Amino acid sequence: MTKIPVGILGATGAVGQRFIQLLEDHPWFEVAWLAASERSAGLTYAEAAKWKMNTAIPERIGKMKVVDANPTGAPKLIFAALDAGIAQEIEPRFAAAGHAVITNSSAFRMHPEVPLVIPEVNSDHLPLLENQSWRKQSRGFIVTNPNCSAIGLVMALAPLVQEFGVEKVFVVTMQAISGAGYPGVASWDILGNVVPYIAKEEEKMEAESKKLLGSLVNAHVQDADFAISAQCNRVAVEDGHTESVSVKLRKPATKEQIISAFANFRGKIADLNLPSAPKQPVFYDPAPDRPQPRLDIHRGAGMTTSVGRLRPCNLLDWKFTVLSHNTIRGAAGAAILNAELLKVKGHLD
Amino acid sequence: MTKIPVGILGATGAVGQRFIQLLEDHPWFEVAWLAASERSAGLTYAEAAKWKMNTAIPERIGKMKVVDANPTGAPKLIFAALDAGIAQEIEPRFAAAGHAVITNSSAFRMHPEVPLVIPEVNSDHLPLLENQSWRKQSRGFIVTNPNCSAIGLVMALAPLVQEFGVEKVFVVTMQAISGAGYPGVASWDILGNVVPYIAKEEEKMEAESKKLLGSLVNAHVQDADFAISAQCNRVAVEDGHTESVSVKLRKPATKEQIISAFANFRGKIADLNLPSAPKQPVFYDPAPDRPQPRLDIHRGAGMTTSVGRLRPCNLLDWKFTVLSHNTIRGAAGAAILNAELLKVKGHLD
Amino acid sequence: MTKIPVGILGATGAVGQRFIQLLEDHPWFEVAWLAASERSAGLTYAEAAKWKMNTAIPERIGKMKVVDANPTGAPKLIFAALDAGIAQEIEPRFAAAGHAVITNSSAFRMHPEVPLVIPEVNSDHLPLLENQSWRKQSRGFIVTNPNCSAIGLVMALAPLVQEFGVEKVFVVTMQAISGAGYPGVASWDILGNVVPYIAKEEEKMEAESKKLLGSLVNAHVQDADFAISAQCNRVAVEDGHTESVSVKLRKPATKEQIISAFANFRGKIADLNLPSAPKQPVFYDPAPDRPQPRLDIHRGAGMTTSVGRLRPCNLLDWKFTVLSHNTIRGAAGAAILNAELLKVKGHLD
Amino acid sequence: MTKIPVGILGATGAVGQRFIQLLEDHPWFEVAWLAASERSAGLTYAEAAKWKMNTAIPERIGKMKVVDANPTGAPKLIFAALDAGIAQEIEPRFAAAGHAVITNSSAFRMHPEVPLVIPEVNSDHLPLLENQSWRKQSRGFIVTNPNCSAIGLVMALAPLVQEFGVEKVFVVTMQAISGAGYPGVASWDILGNVVPYIAKEEEKMEAESKKLLGSLVNAHVQDADFAISAQCNRVAVEDGHTESVSVKLRKPATKEQIISAFANFRGKIADLNLPSAPKQPVFYDPAPDRPQPRLDIHRGAGMTTSVGRLRPCNLLDWKFTVLSHNTIRGAAGAAILNAELLKVKGHLD
Repeated sequence: MTKIPVGILGATGAVGQRFIQLLEDHPWFEVAWLAASERSAGLTYAEAAKWKMNTAIPERIGKMKVVDANPTGAPKLIFAALDAGIAQEIEPRFAAAGHAVITNSSAFRMHPEVPLVIPEVNSDHLPLLENQSWRKQSRGFIVTNPNCSAIGLVMALAPLVQEFGVEKVFVVTMQAISGAGYPGVASWDILGNVVPYIAKEEEKMEAESKKLLGSLVNAHVQDADFAISAQCNRVAVEDGHTESVSVKLRKPATKEQIISAFANFRGKIADLNLPSAPKQPVFYDPAPDRPQPRLDIHRGAGMTTSVGRLRPCNLLDWKFTVLSHNTIRGAAGAAILNAELLKVKGHLD
Repeated sequence: MTKIPVGILGATGAVGQRFIQLLEDHPWFEVAWLAASERSAGLTYAEAAKWKMNTAIPERIGKMKVVDANPTGAPKLIFAALDAGIAQEIEPRFAAAGHAVITNSSAFRMHPEVPLVIPEVNSDHLPLLENQSWRKQSRGFIVTNPNCSAIGLVMALAPLVQEFGVEKVFVVTMQAISGAGYPGVASWDILGNVVPYIAKEEEKMEAESKKLLGSLVNAHVQDADFAISAQCNRVAVEDGHTESVSVKLRKPATKEQIISAFANFRGKIADLNLPSAPKQPVFYDPAPDRPQPRLDIHRGAGMTTSVGRLRPCNLLDWKFTVLSHNTIRGAAGAAILNAELLKVKGHLD
Repeated sequence: MTKIPVGILGATGAVGQRFIQLLEDHPWFEVAWLAASERSAGLTYAEAAKWKMNTAIPERIGKMKVVDANPTGAPKLIFAALDAGIAQEIEPRFAAAGHAVITNSSAFRMHPEVPLVIPEVNSDHLPLLENQSWRKQSRGFIVTNPNCSAIGLVMALAPLVQEFGVEKVFVVTMQAISGAGYPGVASWDILGNVVPYIAKEEEKMEAESKKLLGSLVNAHVQDADFAISAQCNRVAVEDGHTESVSVKLRKPATKEQIISAFANFRGKIADLNLPSAPKQPVFYDPAPDRPQPRLDIHRGAGMTTSVGRLRPCNLLDWKFTVLSHNTIRGAAGAAILNAELLKVKGHLD
Repeated sequence: MTKIPVGILGATGAVGQRFIQLLEDHPWFEVAWLAASERSAGLTYAEAAKWKMNTAIPERIGKMKVVDANPTGAPKLIFAALDAGIAQEIEPRFAAAGHAVITNSSAFRMHPEVPLVIPEVNSDHLPLLENQSWRKQSRGFIVTNPNCSAIGLVMALAPLVQEFGVEKVFVVTMQAISGAGYPGVASWDILGNVVPYIAKEEEKMEAESKKLLGSLVNAHVQDADFAISAQCNRVAVEDGHTESVSVKLRKPATKEQIISAFANFRGKIADLNLPSAPKQPVFYDPAPDRPQPRLDIHRGAGMTTSVGRLRPCNLLDWKFTVLSHNTIRGAAGAAILNAELLKVKGHLD
């Protein structure tokens, strides 16, 4: 079987590198095109990228030429890892030229015609893409995955929403430095420190969570009806966002029922056998002091969300800790899973 | 003027070392007696202690002999820095023998006859000590300061309680490793990691906050009437507990009014000129990304609580970040300030 | 094919855990017996071990009962991960009872009848084990692998010794905290810090290097003839020992010749196809700022030694940087590779 | 007494901030002029600087206007904290306009007419400044202090050079991230990592050490005659460069003699009572595991060099560990001490 050629926009950045790492040996997709800023165009990928992954650059990729971010000659399927400002301008150009743009950027996440998708949670939002003018004109479209801090929270909330309903959510994050890309956070700012601020992060978590857990009604997403308050902090962790969460449910649940809800959650793609989908989307760890980024981040090849410390909350109903790999489940892996879903759903045909 | 001789119980541990560091050059108190476990007794302090402060052992202290934890020969005023299990047994022995035991241990904090005191917040709880049987028999007593994570929170809540009333409190902590003493947290557990669990810490924060903000009514402390939910995490920070807080007030307040309440708070000891009392108990920092442990922990010689990022909360009313030095304001410095208060109030006569 | 059952002495410690992790799915060996201290005996492994690996406890292992460190009932092949003091006493007991003890402990490394082996470097030292009295009496024996800091150095020196001869070696290490086991290094000691001391480490590096690079002459190891000075530091790194090395060669070599020597080194087991042997024992990285622990530690599944920054030295001839995974190549992986070598050489028959 | 007004070139950067922090309350100097890049000119200092010190911006300084880096209106005495490329161009402009430029930049350190000075070590090199053409024309001049990694090494070598002579020096550094300024080292590169490369650092250490320990002969500096090989690494430490050093002396010395040489070293400014000169330039710590950055960096207000672990070396004579505060003794504090020396020597008249 021939693999589907894919392109990467923003291939030299940290998320671009993670795309390359995760797509090496992917059963369906094969990296065929690498684009980056003008400065990099014309160089080999090995020359252009400051490779910061902890596995070597795949040899074939290292020798590929990096090109300009121009649709001409690009494969139909494009993974995008651009900064929001640049994505705002370039992604529509590719969509207009007929490309399927699967992006990790925040630029179009909240656009009413752009699906913001976590396959297990809201794969049924995909038809939204048919509303896009690009789709109508050239068959191109944009599909987005959520912010790295929103995705862990929503993965943990989805089983609760499904089984009991959720009315209120309080969340405080402790986010890894890799979430800010490279060079990203200065070591001067984070060694032995906590920075209680990440620009626009709280707003993204609050807004994206509601869209993700919302419903597609009459070809429009209706936000989920719950209140949410987020506080975002940066900590000296390399990979893995940890979140202290408290929730008020819409109907009573015992500790056992909630743990069951987490453990049994299979989401909306359970029978699709997508290559990047973890067998267990949400894992509940009964240990008193887990999950922890250093120990639990690799569960499900970085695609499983770990939950632990479920206990009653004096203000809402229950509190617990969530951990999610921010550059796999929270970025490149999320986009690849979205592409796999689009493929089996026929949107790439 | 002759200084008051003081003794330190648990002098070789991390908090004991901080007592020695802070009492060097104290205008009223002078370390005259050092007690530790049997293993250390008979050695000089320099031999007995694995000194881990970032200033040198004061020369005079290094040469002092460490003795057993026995009241005979100990000065009247004792600072205690023992583990809770040991404190449970030893502190009453000293109180019964007529000593004023000013302790950082959790053993007696919630005892109904033992004052749990932050001078700026509830200096008026001190008379509770007159209820103690030790006091009646031998003039000895025990006075405690709160847990290192509770004290920052309560310092930040006190101005709000005073001006507007507080009804609900959410708090998630990111606590420094020094809070666990030495050797304390294994580096294997915390380098590049977050540990979402500190034994009994959430319970302490919740219970102590209510006692501290409560009222002395008929010689008993009546807990403050608010709901509180705490989640405690350990992070890779050396000193300084950071806390993400959300509060519901009892009457409406604007951002300016709240900032004023923080900035103008002087507490109940404003006119006492206690040597360890910071000029400004609570400092509000208007910068978007502060307070941060590495940069702000030394404010007010480690005795000022820093607050920042005040903004509306979607669930309660307001959210903000609090930072407090956990081994100065949260341990040895708190006890010393309590001793200063006891002195000016005549309880040491 | 049936796998060979193996036992692990000291199974609950950090190195014991790494043995379990690496032996999961091993093609030749299968963990069949787990021993630890009396405190753990009788518990399941999941109950007894504070599991600190970043993959889950294999399910089958978690349910196995931990037993006392007693030879009765133990498999013939034993991997030992005991502290030196305990190993000193227990390992001979197993050897005397007929067991093949493949140990990571330092207790017998310098014993004249015990092979200290890195297969690629000195697999020909193995016959030394025939001198052991245990061998003669019961067929049991002890074989050791080197200290975690010595092994990276010797892997990098071996190609130079082979091609040019080595006369003098300077080495300064920056060692990961995992080298000290769990709980090991206190976070108070290493966060934002360097500790310029590791007990007995410099002596081990110096002595073991000479034995490893020595020759078996008349059934005795004759130390290699070079001078070596080691300085050992602990740094805030989780896994991976980095070493700044300077060497004086016995005959002149160009930069290209030295890089070739590293890159072409296959060692004494090239044609044995041992499952844990890396294809490339030593990898030379031409980048100006490599190797680095976070990025390069996983090369060759943690069994390849990375070298970089080869440049002339003003005092000796050449200087370079070496990186080696201290708990894989420097501990459990080293022992497993030794066992594989013993197997193909017939010493386990 | 009126204080001498001083200006700071590059006032908003990390070293500029340290100058401001250290000059607050200086008995002789008073900050009167702050210059930075065009982007900052016209703003108040509080607006222009991303303040990263762990004490607050002095109130008076925060309100001062930042100006362009133009000699007009600048005080005679200028502290310079510019990047080397910019310093290359701007510092001569100030010297030509009659200013005393006391700089931390590397631009002119190795210039044959520019003194490279550590007062305790080579205050007698100062007359070199009389050779400068600027001096002859306008009375202006440039005086430099060494690189942050060279200064600790040279402080530790100076007593040995003085008492025994030094023939060979081997040094491996483990340098703090603050040495790279702000934002400097990316957290992605250094959290849990070692970077075995700092651009041009080894060359600077080797060359500057020889000039610093050289002699002024016929109005020219003759380099000291010893061989030196440096290897420089970056580690996850905030402040403080640790160095593993090995030396060959010119005449035999016992351990006691060497420790005496360190402890008794007073250098060439012992009787000058310079305000920033530490009472003890070099402190020898007999503990087996010191010096350590977190614990020992503040000795002598950051101006004392700490030495420990003196022991025999198998290759040269002796090895030991050196620690020096890289942004105080290694940057701003070094320049201020140079200015104090220039003042008492009459070069500022």
